[in-house]
Amino acid sequence: MKNKDSISFLEAAYRDIFPQDSLLRDQATAHLEQLTMPHWALGRLMDLAVDLAGMTSSLDPPVARKTVVIMVGDHGVTAEGVSKYPSEVTAQMVYNFIAGGAGINALARQAGADVKVVDMGTAADFGELVTNGKIISKKIGKGTENIARGPAMTRTHAVLAVEAGIEVANDLADTVDLFGTGDMGIGNTTPSTAVVAAITGKPVAELTGRGTGLDDDGLRKKIQVIEQALEVNRPDGKDGMDVLTKVGGFEIAGIAGLILGAAANRKPVIVDGFISTAGALIAQSLEPFVRDYIICAHRSVEPGHCAMHEKLGCEPLLDLNMRLGEGTGAALAMNLVDAAKAILTEVATFEDAGVTGTPVEE
Amino acid sequence: MKNKDSISFLEAAYRDIFPQDSLLRDQATAHLEQLTMPHWALGRLMDLAVDLAGMTSSLDPPVARKTVVIMVGDHGVTAEGVSKYPSEVTAQMVYNFIAGGAGINALARQAGADVKVVDMGTAADFGELVTNGKIISKKIGKGTENIARGPAMTRTHAVLAVEAGIEVANDLADTVDLFGTGDMGIGNTTPSTAVVAAITGKPVAELTGRGTGLDDDGLRKKIQVIEQALEVNRPDGKDGMDVLTKVGGFEIAGIAGLILGAAANRKPVIVDGFISTAGALIAQSLEPFVRDYIICAHRSVEPGHCAMHEKLGCEPLLDLNMRLGEGTGAALAMNLVDAAKAILTEVATFEDAGVTGTPVEE
Repeated sequence: MKNKDSISFLEAAYRDIFPQDSLLRDQATAHLEQLTMPHWALGRLMDLAVDLAGMTSSLDPPVARKTVVIMVGDHGVTAEGVSKYPSEVTAQMVYNFIAGGAGINALARQAGADVKVVDMGTAADFGELVTNGKIISKKIGKGTENIARGPAMTRTHAVLAVEAGIEVANDLADTVDLFGTGDMGIGNTTPSTAVVAAITGKPVAELTGRGTGLDDDGLRKKIQVIEQALEVNRPDGKDGMDVLTKVGGFEIAGIAGLILGAAANRKPVIVDGFISTAGALIAQSLEPFVRDYIICAHRSVEPGHCAMHEKLGCEPLLDLNMRLGEGTGAALAMNLVDAAKAILTEVATFEDAGVTGTPVEE
Repeated sequence: MKNKDSISFLEAAYRDIFPQDSLLRDQATAHLEQLTMPHWALGRLMDLAVDLAGMTSSLDPPVARKTVVIMVGDHGVTAEGVSKYPSEVTAQMVYNFIAGGAGINALARQAGADVKVVDMGTAADFGELVTNGKIISKKIGKGTENIARGPAMTRTHAVLAVEAGIEVANDLADTVDLFGTGDMGIGNTTPSTAVVAAITGKPVAELTGRGTGLDDDGLRKKIQVIEQALEVNRPDGKDGMDVLTKVGGFEIAGIAGLILGAAANRKPVIVDGFISTAGALIAQSLEPFVRDYIICAHRSVEPGHCAMHEKLGCEPLLDLNMRLGEGTGAALAMNLVDAAKAILTEVATFEDAGVTGTPVEE
């Protein structure tokens, strides 16, 4: 697809998102049923292989060139004391990403993936790291407004932020086969919980978790803050852009855009944890066909994550009590995508291998 | 440890199995708590990292050289019609493993693992493949006896088969850091179900699954056959060697031996699916400390697998609706072992990275 050049850039992206290729899905399914193993014996790996074929319109889906894109933003709502860590940690972790010392760096190396860091809206100024290209700057603002008092951002900024995410996907599309989403932003489980509450209508108390490690008092406070944010802003749960504007975040918008951009380029995108899945819910609300390009990486310990996956209609691949974000779950799941592709492309059929495929009569 | 040279070879192996190194576990835990992330935010990957340190007595646990060992055997009980596939498929699949065309070959390549095939007791004669070293032969017999009519093997053969598995581990120990177990043997969910029923005392009907794809009539028949095998043989659930003798299989014995041998060499061993976990239950019954070296790969769709994991005291890492065996789950889990090691060895601490690690007061 073309890059941003008109007021209808977002609409153009939506129009480039088609459902998976059903012919290739059928061909992949027929092939997998002939492999030298009992029927569908590799279960969800085989489901994933069919998805990859459908997403990429290929029985040899390209997945080798992998990139985890970490969208970063700060949050005005930290003024309410919803996180154990101060906002400065957002920028400190960005430096850690660039130095290669964070959890995501280790797991991306293990998965053979690159890591890209996008400043969607941090309070910090990364100066030289932007000019020398180590950080992609799409900064919309120096952190969102406090959602407990009013909207996180203007609707114009929300649109710009989603478009920025799409641009990142477009710019990388020539060199990336498989995207993973990641996030960094102290306080961002709070807007993410507000997003899932607004979109699903479920009670905030059921959806809210301890984030980086709140105690019981902190958790109660966080629930009150999210309830207040919904009361003050009254987001329309059927309008993803309204939800994003009122209770979202710049990195959540960037993730939504990245997912839309990946889908518009017919590239699979692995959605990481709680914050990334909030972005996926926004993307799905903006253009439902985007769902066909999403692979859900893992189930976070955040209690609202299940409600997100249910709304998205996607069962995550992994469940390892993780709650880090950064794209760590997406990186881990990249190994499973490689495995699914290997099953689709490397396993012999009954006929090729001379194995008796027709079960005996019982 | 030394190789087999006396009548007390088995006992010698048991004596070489020690609990994990608690000092190294504590050191790994203390290090992981200083990493630039919220406390234990990578959950089970961090638990696994602590286990790897404890198993190998190292904060830089060697896991690079990986091998999946596929233990192969045939089963007299197939005469009762408990499998959809004929016994000939066991040998056909061995040829497929050697040709590199099976599911395990694809997944082992993805994980960077070698595959070794051990004939523990098939009905086939692999001739040249044994003499040219493509197959390791530890053949105890040409398939077990029909467990619905009497014991699977003699106690002497059971001991020899476990010892053979230990020998395989010993022979590979100098060139392998991380073992994975695998199995092939048409009909082998039947003895595996009998093993878990004998060891846990749970009702056969709760534990029995469809194997490679039995219909309802086939499943009812299989349950009757397993109940008959337990009735005819009356295995002592507290004596793993008795259970193995009466209702086990040669490849199940080989897997038990491989696990014991890995533990005696202080190497982590990833236990694959339903058949492999039956082998692990036998190994645990013979020497309980072996549990400290076991990593459970995945939860199979076989209903008895949960009871096995419960008895073993081990939560599997993956749950992907798989039921192939061959070591496919073990190969997939090798990626997670690599990831756990990367977390332990590659992530910066708060101090190193200049990240504010002390949470703010709330």
